[in-house]
Amino acid sequence: MPSSLEAKLIIADSESDSNLYYACQFLVPDPIIYFEWKNKKYLILSDLEIDRAKKQAQADYFLSLTAISKKVTRSKKERNLPAYALIVHKIFGQKKIKRLVVPANFPAQYYVAFKKLGYSITVKPDPFYENRLIKTPEQKKYIIHAAKHVAGALQKAVLLLEKSKIVKNRIYYGKEMVTSELLRSVINADLMRNGCVAMHTIVASGVQGSFPHHEGNGPIIPHTPIIFDIFPRDAHSRYWADQTRTFIKGNPSAMVRKMYDSVLKANQLGISLVKEGVSGAEIHKQVKECMEADGFKTGVNKGRLEGYIHSTGHGLGLDIHELPSVSAKGGVLHRGEVITIEPGLYYQAHGGIRVEDDVFVTKNGREVLTCSPKFFEIDRGV
Amino acid sequence: MPSSLEAKLIIADSESDSNLYYACQFLVPDPIIYFEWKNKKYLILSDLEIDRAKKQAQADYFLSLTAISKKVTRSKKERNLPAYALIVHKIFGQKKIKRLVVPANFPAQYYVAFKKLGYSITVKPDPFYENRLIKTPEQKKYIIHAAKHVAGALQKAVLLLEKSKIVKNRIYYGKEMVTSELLRSVINADLMRNGCVAMHTIVASGVQGSFPHHEGNGPIIPHTPIIFDIFPRDAHSRYWADQTRTFIKGNPSAMVRKMYDSVLKANQLGISLVKEGVSGAEIHKQVKECMEADGFKTGVNKGRLEGYIHSTGHGLGLDIHELPSVSAKGGVLHRGEVITIEPGLYYQAHGGIRVEDDVFVTKNGREVLTCSPKFFEIDRGV
Repeated sequence: MPSSLEAKLIIADSESDSNLYYACQFLVPDPIIYFEWKNKKYLILSDLEIDRAKKQAQADYFLSLTAISKKVTRSKKERNLPAYALIVHKIFGQKKIKRLVVPANFPAQYYVAFKKLGYSITVKPDPFYENRLIKTPEQKKYIIHAAKHVAGALQKAVLLLEKSKIVKNRIYYGKEMVTSELLRSVINADLMRNGCVAMHTIVASGVQGSFPHHEGNGPIIPHTPIIFDIFPRDAHSRYWADQTRTFIKGNPSAMVRKMYDSVLKANQLGISLVKEGVSGAEIHKQVKECMEADGFKTGVNKGRLEGYIHSTGHGLGLDIHELPSVSAKGGVLHRGEVITIEPGLYYQAHGGIRVEDDVFVTKNGREVLTCSPKFFEIDRGV
Repeated sequence: MPSSLEAKLIIADSESDSNLYYACQFLVPDPIIYFEWKNKKYLILSDLEIDRAKKQAQADYFLSLTAISKKVTRSKKERNLPAYALIVHKIFGQKKIKRLVVPANFPAQYYVAFKKLGYSITVKPDPFYENRLIKTPEQKKYIIHAAKHVAGALQKAVLLLEKSKIVKNRIYYGKEMVTSELLRSVINADLMRNGCVAMHTIVASGVQGSFPHHEGNGPIIPHTPIIFDIFPRDAHSRYWADQTRTFIKGNPSAMVRKMYDSVLKANQLGISLVKEGVSGAEIHKQVKECMEADGFKTGVNKGRLEGYIHSTGHGLGLDIHELPSVSAKGGVLHRGEVITIEPGLYYQAHGGIRVEDDVFVTKNGREVLTCSPKFFEIDRGV
């Protein structure tokens, strides 16, 4: 039971701060002040936002920043403190609030100011709101909705590749050379038409694919794997989807085919392990060992790390990367969480392969939310 | 001259933290460690990112998070400190770094950890990098580039409205009813095709337009002003453009026409005042008085604020809202800064009007970077 002297405080913009958006469901591009006290929610807003907030935000009290600012006086000691800190201090003084609980990402400038003003401050490690990780049926639907649009957009890119021809180590769609930029534009524009915003869609072939986060640029290289990692945010619900498929236009080498088969097997194994009570660390370990058993080693080669060089997955929701982690340090999964399962293999000589799905954790297992088909060879698979 | 005991430190992801992106020009979705010491730049990165960083990032040294993690031992006192803090501590111990300079938004969890580890910490108020506000010719071009695509996208929406017909207080494009969603989709998809990511484009008519940040939804109301506030980020350069135009489909009332004329006049006045050495406060004051002189009052009416209820503008660059501010508290402008000039009027009974341009500050005046034509009546203006 929190003491009546204690308040939860966030100072942020909800465009970038998902805890704030989760708390008040109000989208605002500039920092606002939000606090919870005695089970009530308070928003302190400028003239620009206050009337829209009264219509759109989930809060109990809407206080005017302008009105409170006029009542703030600064002592000599307070001269250099940020205005927002003094405004909060004015309100908290009236309510006799002395102790603050703030999120891990609370800005240091305000932390320092509130310390100077005499508050006792607890910085709460993530998650600030435990319930944010447990998706309601409605929130699960938001992710499924975005994932469906990902599948639709990816299909457009795959169809384009199907209709394209290989000429002298390049790929042509009619007279147009197929590039990472072209495919990314097809995918992102399709997503945008459906209200999903994709910023850094990865379309990377050849050696670019061997860097897991290389976005890809220039010509798509035939006979090498093409990684499509598509992760848009639904502009309306603000939930993300995150799906990766890998395809090849042309003929895979025996090694590349073996890599694909191993990654797909690891992806399926990882998904099959998801269940309430299982730890992310255990899933990561088994996924890693699965590919190692197929002979794929991880280590330094010619000055670069190769093999399985990232973790198996991450939580997904209002942030593209949130808790829980599916890595060597990953804790126990809870029903209602959504995680990605995304094993991959990366070798300079062969390129990169990754297969990724979004998985909803249930009491007895899982539900896969992403829905694109899994096949490798563009010219055979459909 | 900074002491050799002092380092500038950022712990953030460069997707959301523009200071970090500015410093290292490397895009990464998860937090990394960056510091500057003795005029050298250091990046500490996971296995997932380090090899891509060596190719793409601007830094002098690339340290392996994995390798350093293995050397970190925790004393009892350090048991609950975040891993990143201990990794930094390991490196700084070797270099005898004792004093940190961190940005205003430095996460409180790390601030507290470094305090416990004995560091002296200066939280530097914004701007962390003064030079970030002064745009190079190349950076100015990035904004112009995005602004051109804004103009192209807006033109598509205006053409659609031109070709549409008013039927019973609704607008139809062929058989399709014209809505905020339709126009937003036309604009955003066009921007996305051109590599510019627009997330919250405002297309708001009727009473929705009277809330400055209402995105707009449902049918566009004929004979009322339609605000188009378009602010995409170029996914490649990461610079923003930000432009607002207001149009009307149908016939404006005498009052609405007067509002438009006053806002346009205030926009032109504001632009004409921009010059190195002039303060944002002075521009805001004159812009405000210009509309007041036309009889447009600001205050509470039927429980809502009406009139000119926001500031005149903001800095623009790697962040959509950055310094300098063009408001009652705005300081002096410097050549090379880019600001918006965006007066508006908002009344429940008449809707909202806003006209906004991006303006580059020069020694003797200004250069306007946005380029859409300014007219009001869709059916007359073209």
